[in-house]
Amino acid sequence: MSLLTIGSVAFDALETPFGKTDKIIGGAATYITLSASYFTEENNLVAVVGDDFPQSMIDDLNRHGVDTEGLAVRKGEKTFFWSGKYHNDMNTRDTVEVQLNVMEHFDPVIPDSYQDCQYLMLGNTAPAIQRTVIGRLHNRPKLIVLDTMNLWIDIARPDLMTLIPMVDILVVNDEEARQLTGQYALVTAAAKIREMGPKTVIIKKGEHGALLFHEGQIFFAPALPLAEVFDPTGAGDTFAGGFIGHLAKTDDVSFENMKRAIIYGSAMASFCVEQFGAERIMNLTQNEIQARVSEFVKLSAFGLG
Amino acid sequence: MSLLTIGSVAFDALETPFGKTDKIIGGAATYITLSASYFTEENNLVAVVGDDFPQSMIDDLNRHGVDTEGLAVRKGEKTFFWSGKYHNDMNTRDTVEVQLNVMEHFDPVIPDSYQDCQYLMLGNTAPAIQRTVIGRLHNRPKLIVLDTMNLWIDIARPDLMTLIPMVDILVVNDEEARQLTGQYALVTAAAKIREMGPKTVIIKKGEHGALLFHEGQIFFAPALPLAEVFDPTGAGDTFAGGFIGHLAKTDDVSFENMKRAIIYGSAMASFCVEQFGAERIMNLTQNEIQARVSEFVKLSAFGLG
Repeated sequence: MSLLTIGSVAFDALETPFGKTDKIIGGAATYITLSASYFTEENNLVAVVGDDFPQSMIDDLNRHGVDTEGLAVRKGEKTFFWSGKYHNDMNTRDTVEVQLNVMEHFDPVIPDSYQDCQYLMLGNTAPAIQRTVIGRLHNRPKLIVLDTMNLWIDIARPDLMTLIPMVDILVVNDEEARQLTGQYALVTAAAKIREMGPKTVIIKKGEHGALLFHEGQIFFAPALPLAEVFDPTGAGDTFAGGFIGHLAKTDDVSFENMKRAIIYGSAMASFCVEQFGAERIMNLTQNEIQARVSEFVKLSAFGLG
Repeated sequence: MSLLTIGSVAFDALETPFGKTDKIIGGAATYITLSASYFTEENNLVAVVGDDFPQSMIDDLNRHGVDTEGLAVRKGEKTFFWSGKYHNDMNTRDTVEVQLNVMEHFDPVIPDSYQDCQYLMLGNTAPAIQRTVIGRLHNRPKLIVLDTMNLWIDIARPDLMTLIPMVDILVVNDEEARQLTGQYALVTAAAKIREMGPKTVIIKKGEHGALLFHEGQIFFAPALPLAEVFDPTGAGDTFAGGFIGHLAKTDDVSFENMKRAIIYGSAMASFCVEQFGAERIMNLTQNEIQARVSEFVKLSAFGLG
C-alpha cells in the first residue's frame, strides 16, 4: 500500500569522536523514506528544500523509488541546516547550529497523486505542520504514525496535544515519553499516552532496544549490541521508516505484525549508525537486511525446552 | 546437583521513595540462596553472622531448604550492616552507613558435607575471600560463577584480576563491565573479560535486561517493564540465584540452557523489586514463577511468519 512521509529534508554537518563531515544530506524524511524504500514501492515524500539542494541528491532519492513530486524546491531560498556534535558516549549531543531557512514557512502541499495514501508517517517537524498534512488529505489514512521530539514538547505542547489524539501510533524515545507525561516508569508513561488517544505507543530506548505497547500488550525488541556506533544521526528516523515500510508493504496492522515491523525497523537502524549520515542506508541489499534480521532472531530467541 | 553459595548474610536498613525499613534481613548470599531454593534442593550456604542475628531468620532460610551448616555464628560479634537510600529514579543510591562487623575477618570454612558441590556461586564479597573458597574445595566444581561490584574493582583490583581467570562465568552490571575493562561498548567490554579467562560473561542492565556472551554468541534477555519498582535491593543477587539455581537443577551448562537460566533469573529479580528486601522472594509459589516466566516469553516472542 502507498506510504506518504512528511518531515525535513536537510543538510547536516556532523561531528562524532570518529570524525566530522561537511554538509551532507540529512533530515527526518530523508532517513524515513530511504529506510522504507527497502520495503514498500509506493513511497511518497512531502518536504521542502531550497535551490541550493543538489539535484544529484534528489536523483538518489528517486533511484530508491522515492516519489519527489511533493518535494517543493523554493527558488532563492536555502535548505534547512543542522549541525551537531556528539559527546564521547554517543548518547548525548550538542546542537552547534540551526538554520531554519525554508522550514520557517513550510506549507506542506499534497500532490493529487498522493491523496490515496493508506499509510501516513508524520516525521519529526512542528506539530502544526504535521496537523496541516492530516487536514489536507481528503480521506483519513488507514494508519497514522507520529514522531516528535523534546523540542516540540517544550515549545509547542498545546499543538502537540491536539495532534496526538488524531494519530494511531506515537513513536518517542524514553526521555520524550517521560517529558510528555511526567511519568518516570515507561509502562505508566505509555499508559498515559494511550489515554491521550493513540492505540499504540512505541518507546525507543536506543542501545537498549524498543518497547511496543498495544492494547494492554507489551513487546520488548532488543537492539543489536554493537562494538562501535560511528554516528547515531538518523537512527530513530531509520527505525520509523523500516517500521512503517514493513506495515505498508504487508498492509497488516495486527500486534503480531507490528512486532515484526519493529524488528525490521531495529535492523535498519543498526545499519544506519555504522557510517556517517545516510551513507549506509543508501547502499543496502535485501540480502544484508535479511542477514541482519536473522541476527535479531538469534539474539532474542529462547525456548523453555 | 548441589549448589554452594558464599557471600554476605546481613542486616539492611533501606529507604526508597516508597518508605523505609528498620533492620531487615539482607546480604548477597541471602538473596542468592532464597532465589535458588525455588529451583535446586541441595542449597548450601557459607557465610558468617554475629550472635545478634535472630534464629528465626535462620529458620526461614532452612524452611526454604537452605543448608546453614556453613553459616558461622560468631559469639559476641555483630552481623554485617548496610543502610542505603535510593534516589527518586531508583537507579542510583547512596550508602548511608556500613558496619563490617563480622565480615572484617570472615574466614570461610567449608563443611565436609559441602565438598561435593558441583555448582559454586561466589556471591559479592571481597575477592580474596572468594578465592579462598575455591582453594578450600578439594575438587574444582563443574561451574564457578563470580559476582563482584564496583567497590572491589576500585580497592581490590589485583585480587580480582587473579580470581577472574579461575571462574567460568562473570556476572557484572554495565557500569562495572565498563569500569573493569575501560571499554564503553558492552560487546567490547565482554570480549575483554572473556580474554581474562571466563568463557561466559553476563552483563546486567537493570530495567534494560541482561546480555549473555558465550563463545562468540550473544543473547539479549528483556527485563519486565514494571509500573513500579518498590525496592531494587537484592535484585542482582536474586537474578544470580535464579540463574545458577536453574543450572544446578538441570545440570546443563549449554548456551541454550544458560538462556533459559537468564530468563528464570530475570523472572525472580522482577519479583524481588516488588516489596522491601527479601520479603517477596521469601513467599513465592512455583505457579507464580511459571506465570511470570510466561510473561517473559510473551514479552520477547515474535515470528517472522
